[in-house]
Amino acid sequence: MTTLESPKGILLVVSGAAGTGKGTVNAILMKEHDDFVFSVSATTRAPRPGEVDGREYHFMTKEQFEEQIRLGGVIEYTQYCGNYYGTLKSELRKLDEGKNLILEIEVEGAMNIKRLFPDSVAVFILPPDAVTLRNRLVNRGTNTADDIENRMKRALDEFSLVEHYDYAVVNHDGRAKEAADAIYAIVKSEQHKASRAEGAMNRLFFNQE
Amino acid sequence: MTTLESPKGILLVVSGAAGTGKGTVNAILMKEHDDFVFSVSATTRAPRPGEVDGREYHFMTKEQFEEQIRLGGVIEYTQYCGNYYGTLKSELRKLDEGKNLILEIEVEGAMNIKRLFPDSVAVFILPPDAVTLRNRLVNRGTNTADDIENRMKRALDEFSLVEHYDYAVVNHDGRAKEAADAIYAIVKSEQHKASRAEGAMNRLFFNQE
Repeated sequence: MTTLESPKGILLVVSGAAGTGKGTVNAILMKEHDDFVFSVSATTRAPRPGEVDGREYHFMTKEQFEEQIRLGGVIEYTQYCGNYYGTLKSELRKLDEGKNLILEIEVEGAMNIKRLFPDSVAVFILPPDAVTLRNRLVNRGTNTADDIENRMKRALDEFSLVEHYDYAVVNHDGRAKEAADAIYAIVKSEQHKASRAEGAMNRLFFNQE
Repeated sequence: MTTLESPKGILLVVSGAAGTGKGTVNAILMKEHDDFVFSVSATTRAPRPGEVDGREYHFMTKEQFEEQIRLGGVIEYTQYCGNYYGTLKSELRKLDEGKNLILEIEVEGAMNIKRLFPDSVAVFILPPDAVTLRNRLVNRGTNTADDIENRMKRALDEFSLVEHYDYAVVNHDGRAKEAADAIYAIVKSEQHKASRAEGAMNRLFFNQE
């Protein structure tokens, strides 16, 4: 143990609108640091070709999902197009293994997690500006003009929620590595929060003579 | 600008008892990152051989120092063995130049700085445990047995103040580089605090359309 770090990992909540590149940023973070892992969401939607249970999602039936909700086994969930999407409590075990657990989640779910787990760290990924965001959405080529307008509107609405997050990181074009480095620094610094220093204090006094 | 960083540097308050190795840690930090600079204290004590005005200290007469206090040019000061020691307001100009300014200061001064500058970041350097701290004080060879007991008592008393700091960093024997890296991560992450993100938000909205 080099620091006051607790052996537990940090629960890292990452949000970002479509076009902010949060997926790319998180992928770099996990590739470069093997103590960062994704929280795998649970869903009741059917697997798509190539999706593996436990990798892309924990695939569940509607009945299984609702049973887990009743049992308190789901820490947050939402419904979208008639399917459940959520986070199973069992994912948190990765924290006990010392992994920093990345929860890629939209703003409402993120705020729920912050309420349930005040020690979690919430990071908002931002595009450098609205023009860049629009270009990214256009360049995907998969969005209709209406889609793009809706996503732009939604993104700009959501940006006002940044104040509810702990940190904001801008993901510039072609510089996702810098954003990943920033999130790494954030987690590293959080491990040094004075409020997490009790263990070391006790060691100091305990060892005193 | 790769992030939401403001062009202003961070005011970094670093405290640590004798034997925590804060001087070594700060020296590494400045050697590795040229955007970190020391705040040079002002004092009314006489220069020692080899000390250069403006490098070790800003050397002043008692009259000059008291004049600066009256003019509001001193942001914190203390008296020790009949001499003034303090921080001149002019040191803060380094922040406007984008430098992160390290203020190595004892706990009372640190708390005053936090009150005056809530945006400052206060880091407490800790030894790994009381036994190690005692060994370091003994190994210096310059302390009498009474000195050592006094310093131990004072250090242990001060450790209870860690809760007033933002961060705590343990400096293990022979691993000052790790402590310096931790402080670097802390400053980097502070630049991403959501509360500092207003500029980017305005850019986003300003650029919309």
